[in-house]
Amino acid sequence: MEYDTIAAISTPKGEGAIAIVRLSGDQAVQIANKLFKEKDLEKVDSHTIHYGHLIDPASNQTIEEVMISVLRAPKTFTREDVVEINCHGGIFSVNKVLELVLSQGVRLAEPGEFTKRAFLNGRIDLSQAEAVMDLIRAKTDRAMAVAMNQVEGRLSKLIQTLRQQLLEILAHIEVNIDYPEYDDVEEMTNNMLIPKAQNVLVEIQKLLETSKQGKILREGLATVIIGRPNVGKSSLLNTLVQESKAIVTDIPGTTRDVIEEYVNVRGVPLRLIDTAGIRETKDVVEAIGVERSKKVLGLADLVLFVLNYNEPLTEEDRVLYEQMENKDIIVIINKTDLEQRLDIEDVKQLVKNSTIVSTSLKEEKGVDELEAAIANLYFKGQIEAQDLTYLSNARHIGLLKQSEQTIKDAISAIEMQMPVDLVQIDLTRTWELLGEIVGDSVQESLIDQLFSQFCLGK
Amino acid sequence: MEYDTIAAISTPKGEGAIAIVRLSGDQAVQIANKLFKEKDLEKVDSHTIHYGHLIDPASNQTIEEVMISVLRAPKTFTREDVVEINCHGGIFSVNKVLELVLSQGVRLAEPGEFTKRAFLNGRIDLSQAEAVMDLIRAKTDRAMAVAMNQVEGRLSKLIQTLRQQLLEILAHIEVNIDYPEYDDVEEMTNNMLIPKAQNVLVEIQKLLETSKQGKILREGLATVIIGRPNVGKSSLLNTLVQESKAIVTDIPGTTRDVIEEYVNVRGVPLRLIDTAGIRETKDVVEAIGVERSKKVLGLADLVLFVLNYNEPLTEEDRVLYEQMENKDIIVIINKTDLEQRLDIEDVKQLVKNSTIVSTSLKEEKGVDELEAAIANLYFKGQIEAQDLTYLSNARHIGLLKQSEQTIKDAISAIEMQMPVDLVQIDLTRTWELLGEIVGDSVQESLIDQLFSQFCLGK
Repeated sequence: MEYDTIAAISTPKGEGAIAIVRLSGDQAVQIANKLFKEKDLEKVDSHTIHYGHLIDPASNQTIEEVMISVLRAPKTFTREDVVEINCHGGIFSVNKVLELVLSQGVRLAEPGEFTKRAFLNGRIDLSQAEAVMDLIRAKTDRAMAVAMNQVEGRLSKLIQTLRQQLLEILAHIEVNIDYPEYDDVEEMTNNMLIPKAQNVLVEIQKLLETSKQGKILREGLATVIIGRPNVGKSSLLNTLVQESKAIVTDIPGTTRDVIEEYVNVRGVPLRLIDTAGIRETKDVVEAIGVERSKKVLGLADLVLFVLNYNEPLTEEDRVLYEQMENKDIIVIINKTDLEQRLDIEDVKQLVKNSTIVSTSLKEEKGVDELEAAIANLYFKGQIEAQDLTYLSNARHIGLLKQSEQTIKDAISAIEMQMPVDLVQIDLTRTWELLGEIVGDSVQESLIDQLFSQFCLGK
Repeated sequence: MEYDTIAAISTPKGEGAIAIVRLSGDQAVQIANKLFKEKDLEKVDSHTIHYGHLIDPASNQTIEEVMISVLRAPKTFTREDVVEINCHGGIFSVNKVLELVLSQGVRLAEPGEFTKRAFLNGRIDLSQAEAVMDLIRAKTDRAMAVAMNQVEGRLSKLIQTLRQQLLEILAHIEVNIDYPEYDDVEEMTNNMLIPKAQNVLVEIQKLLETSKQGKILREGLATVIIGRPNVGKSSLLNTLVQESKAIVTDIPGTTRDVIEEYVNVRGVPLRLIDTAGIRETKDVVEAIGVERSKKVLGLADLVLFVLNYNEPLTEEDRVLYEQMENKDIIVIINKTDLEQRLDIEDVKQLVKNSTIVSTSLKEEKGVDELEAAIANLYFKGQIEAQDLTYLSNARHIGLLKQSEQTIKDAISAIEMQMPVDLVQIDLTRTWELLGEIVGDSVQESLIDQLFSQFCLGK
């Protein structure tokens, strides 16, 4: 396919040593060449780098000192001709270079448009394209590995295999319908159809089983630290932030309603909610607003419920606990360096089967156990992300859940000896739903919407 | 010279499409090769780009999809072997790639260390290196052009020419002292020395004349909008910000005591001080704290003094004006859409020779005139930055002022028939001072300090 030539700043905003303005399209090399002083870029080999200066053709003035990479189709990110202009990483200077490029009739790329072209030109499928953004937004090693797997097409291959199996079933049914007289074509009996369809169902369910972990890795585990005043919430927050091997905070300047911090606990990205609330309180005794804790708890997947080893369980603790229904809970009994006044049996009775960890955050004791408890709650037995194809994207999960239903419907229809064309409909629908994951049968408006969530220049 | 191999993230911090980890040093290619899956990078040509994957040798796992640029010495930024790893621009992913590189025994580069090596390896001189950061921090076209000129070595050439002239004078003096009997060597008489030294002085003074403009372009013109409540300060601020062709604000998240905004008025970067103070007031009548306005005025080079066309001059206006001594002032008579109640003669008497501009910001009248007034105050007659070598760096200005003094001392000494060795001392000192600008005779500690102000990865 052929599109117009686009350009955008592809490096993050802000001041740095190097910035990149990327061009893609038929005219990319020709236009870069018009601005380049030293060499005829149209005559250079692909995948080569050229030092020189950008000249404004209007004024003939030198604008910037640059390194230009010439990458010719098809072995490029977009499968089109790509030019990357590496310039000095000033906010003004890189905008100046972009402006210069746009002045030559190049169009400013929309967010995600480079990746969209990679998809539309067939280099990657939709799930791979989506994983590119997951990779960029990954907060831990595991999340990155999951995204990398998907960028490399491991999920795509799985999905395509399932679709192939469905096609084969459908083809057999078709042959049986159209040419029932053909003796040499094996007749597709119900007994033969069911195990094949069952096999697809099992694979879909296996994938769906990874989705809880996948979603956690992709989006972070919404986590709330809760407890009465002075039990050590603020110490816990600080400990988690300090222990974290790679603290990834959100980009400064983006506006958010709820303050969040990311910490990396053994590869599990915890998205800590309402940390500002915790930081604000300090040593001041606060009245726990029930409304507030309810609201914050509503956002959480995991609750870190902090109790005081030095105080008996109070009514307040029980009230707090009641609000945590349907959440994963880890109970932290803190301040074990002080005298025991808390009855552990009381705690066990209250929190039922939730994991209980004892800590003295002051003396840095029990932190390892706490981290292990968090990791084990979601990733038992140290499964390495690299070994598994996780389902992580909410869109994929939704489609796979639907296809689980349609393949179940197909199986029921076969078992109930329904007319074969009804079975065909369910199987075809399953095939289509899986196709939407990889972008084989997907509406243009959805594609536009998906790519608009990308960052500029990608 | 040979140094160890260093690496750093060279793109701005934050989330983007592409990030770069840059390596420089003897081991750069070898180390990148250890991590690269697809090819033997040690065998590829210089200035070529290679698509592939980074593998962690410890776990044999694929870490990232990358494009690797191999640039061999000496035609590189540092004059050493350079490898640039372009990876996905996620905060985590680029840190992961850096971590992987550092795990191979590469050292994390200090701020500015790549540019420092370019200097130490003789590719650029010190003034050029300093201009690299000026280019990155440039806020307007003109500022960028000035920096680009210096990066290209135009200031360096001027300085070296002056040093050469000084050397020639010194050589002649030396010959006269050592071989007074040589008839064929032209004797350096005072009459001959003076015009030569004068010539150097004139060139130094010419350069110093550009320093006010140069400093404004480099650092921005510290500007304060001041006036009584409800004269239109906030409208003026908004107008300047909107009209600005390239608004460059500081990077979000950096902490600053005084809130500043940059606006670009015809290529002059205005650094607006205390804009928060203006934005806060809105329509509320504020008591002008004399202390506060004094403090803010103390920071300013240029004062935009706003008066109300619809009200007579007040005692408050006079008090404000008294605080503006020694500042450049542009008086803005705003609200010309309303009935005239201000006596312009009163204003002229108060503000003496300051430029007066009439505006109706509400009706968007007079804004062009205001911008022209600002530009003319500092850049009369539309001199293009490209045509001039500006002195912009405070260090250079300081050294040039000192050398102006020492060459003057030398001229006085000659005129006063002082012993020739005293003249020699002054001339040699001038030569040394000029040398410090380009880094020919400069202490290591100063070099370390200069480069430490650079951004990481440059």
